[in-house]
Amino acid sequence: MTTLIQLGEQAKKAARFLAVAETKDKNLALEAIVAQLKQDESIILAANEKDLALAKENNVPETMMDRLLLTSDRLMTMCADIESIIRLADPIGLVDKMWKNADGLTIGKQRVPLGVIGMIYEARPNVTTDAASLCFKSGNAVILRGGKEAFHSNQALVTSMQKALASVNFPEACIQFIADTRRETAKDFMTLNGYLDVLIPRGGANLIQTVVKTATVPVIETGTGNCHVYVDKDADLEMALNIVMNGKTQRPSVCNATETLIVHEAIAESFLPLLEVAMTPFHVELRADTLSSRYLSTSIPATEEDFKTEFNDFILAIKTVASSEEAIEHIQTYTTHHSEVIVTNNYTTSQSFLKQIDAAAVYVNASSRFTDGSAFGFGGEIGISTQKLHARGPMGLNELTSTKYIIYGSGQIRH
Amino acid sequence: MTTLIQLGEQAKKAARFLAVAETKDKNLALEAIVAQLKQDESIILAANEKDLALAKENNVPETMMDRLLLTSDRLMTMCADIESIIRLADPIGLVDKMWKNADGLTIGKQRVPLGVIGMIYEARPNVTTDAASLCFKSGNAVILRGGKEAFHSNQALVTSMQKALASVNFPEACIQFIADTRRETAKDFMTLNGYLDVLIPRGGANLIQTVVKTATVPVIETGTGNCHVYVDKDADLEMALNIVMNGKTQRPSVCNATETLIVHEAIAESFLPLLEVAMTPFHVELRADTLSSRYLSTSIPATEEDFKTEFNDFILAIKTVASSEEAIEHIQTYTTHHSEVIVTNNYTTSQSFLKQIDAAAVYVNASSRFTDGSAFGFGGEIGISTQKLHARGPMGLNELTSTKYIIYGSGQIRH
Repeated sequence: MTTLIQLGEQAKKAARFLAVAETKDKNLALEAIVAQLKQDESIILAANEKDLALAKENNVPETMMDRLLLTSDRLMTMCADIESIIRLADPIGLVDKMWKNADGLTIGKQRVPLGVIGMIYEARPNVTTDAASLCFKSGNAVILRGGKEAFHSNQALVTSMQKALASVNFPEACIQFIADTRRETAKDFMTLNGYLDVLIPRGGANLIQTVVKTATVPVIETGTGNCHVYVDKDADLEMALNIVMNGKTQRPSVCNATETLIVHEAIAESFLPLLEVAMTPFHVELRADTLSSRYLSTSIPATEEDFKTEFNDFILAIKTVASSEEAIEHIQTYTTHHSEVIVTNNYTTSQSFLKQIDAAAVYVNASSRFTDGSAFGFGGEIGISTQKLHARGPMGLNELTSTKYIIYGSGQIRH
Repeated sequence: MTTLIQLGEQAKKAARFLAVAETKDKNLALEAIVAQLKQDESIILAANEKDLALAKENNVPETMMDRLLLTSDRLMTMCADIESIIRLADPIGLVDKMWKNADGLTIGKQRVPLGVIGMIYEARPNVTTDAASLCFKSGNAVILRGGKEAFHSNQALVTSMQKALASVNFPEACIQFIADTRRETAKDFMTLNGYLDVLIPRGGANLIQTVVKTATVPVIETGTGNCHVYVDKDADLEMALNIVMNGKTQRPSVCNATETLIVHEAIAESFLPLLEVAMTPFHVELRADTLSSRYLSTSIPATEEDFKTEFNDFILAIKTVASSEEAIEHIQTYTTHHSEVIVTNNYTTSQSFLKQIDAAAVYVNASSRFTDGSAFGFGGEIGISTQKLHARGPMGLNELTSTKYIIYGSGQIRH
């Protein structure tokens, strides 16, 4: 079995190759990957059936079975996603800015790949092709560590992608896979200093916290979103209703879904009954504080814990406040710094919210559901960073790069 | 004694205050700090004398005694450095770019502070005022953990700065100091997740490696520089001589000093004897590979270890190569990704070097000594990042910021 150190060494070598590869060659390789994945469809689906059978044996819950499932259609969607990555502009080589310093040196800040990216993720096999192609397009070698439930699927996908790479004379080690599902190996991966330039966990809060606490390589924290919508006294109530409904019910399982509604007391009496009626067909459980519950017929009492929780479900916590300052204070206390929304037509209140709320995305009069790479216009995304270092918010190709200073001199020395 | 958690909580509170403070108020506070430091000169110098006396008792080496020493002149220089930070542009609030997405949302990427910055450093007390004022100007609260040798000096400096902050109605906790020199406390500091947005170690390789390996909070690795100069066959030899001399002898103790010279074999015979003559007055020890040693009268043999070493001293490793590719290969093997130099008049060779070398700063025809915040035109710097995540190369005010997306909508929901 290949050791992690060997994977790391091969990845570093491949990263040097990839760092200087031209965009057109990288695109050709991604096209070869799409063709190979299509050709290997039956092998990939057979591997997936093996995973599904094992999952059934192990009584894996139905929702996870669905995440795990590959079909011909789903594989075609994965290929289409790679094709859209081919069409994205390559950030590598771009010079963000260039200036002359006092000594007459011309200094340029140029985009370069990060180098070797580690990915730790859970059951969805589409993350395998998605992460691999985003890392590849941005000139990074990637080492993938998917969930053990998807082991055979991921192995088949990576084998197919590596075959494609070899066919166009790229090192297979541009995309590698840890064929070892033991926990100790995950730990060793998180401490593979000197080989991993960054480790990106993608999955539930438990996975992310384990990585953050265990890793000694640089990590980008992704994910958790306890997103709030504050409906101000000066809000357009119809707009507010649309935004809260969209945030809570359009896709409640994702990190940019709305979890808590905060309502100004001046409009609570008119807004909350409207909301309750609109939520009824979606069977949304309303967990309300005492003030809010007066205007709701079927709410249950909200606990402190509810205001802290990312439900990822048809549950909404509700709080009524006396002022926008109180709303801001509540959000700043409970925010996971993902996406926060105010609905208001008051200019001063909107500016104050934008200024004071500390989150990756702060919205005035729009749904929290827009926080992702495709909605922002980045093409794909490798995750949504909720930390402040390196990247914040949706991470597209640009967030998978670093920079180097290229300096043109004419013999300058330091005095 | 205040616990780290208490320091962290106070810092978070102060960071919220600072994040929305106006530039002119931050500048006024920095001016108050300068005035207070000047007023407290005798207290600060007395505290420094205490540190010096203890250091003498503990037989601390002469070089460290010098780093530890504060004088009236040195304190004035520290104040002048703060004054130059006052004059720097405030990055907070700047919108790097703003665009409209497909749904008609106006999305702006705005500079915000990182939040709470931790600093771990060694004996120089000037780092205390320097780091504090850079963090403050960029809207960040800072928690400082200086070397135990400078304990009393740092405590006096921080007390003085806090007094100034209080006088202009800023929270004292904008600048805090860990008044506990135990090792366990340093470890607890490195794992203060939830409070520190980033931890920046500044000092020798040992300190930095300890922090990288121990910390679970995000770290920016700084420092180590095994910098190379490659003198190509197409180099102007006089220019090359100036650049190597400057890199090695102008200030050999710093991280951007030149440690290894690589010479093309076609010019080794003419260049190396010139170099030896020029180096003689500086008593530079030349550690040469077999090929190079033929052209030197007094070199000693270079070992593999020499090519790996950041000497920070009047020692130069020398290697002769048959091609620019071999030079690039050597550098890519031994680089610490800090600053690398080629001297050449060949266009193709220069471009190939710029493209292939993976370092924070890659120079054509200039000394490696230019890699720092002031030479780059950033004003001050808090350190030189040798990692690829978040910031690479000299870190000025801009590198102490994060971003948030501010999004102006008109009722948009996701479909």
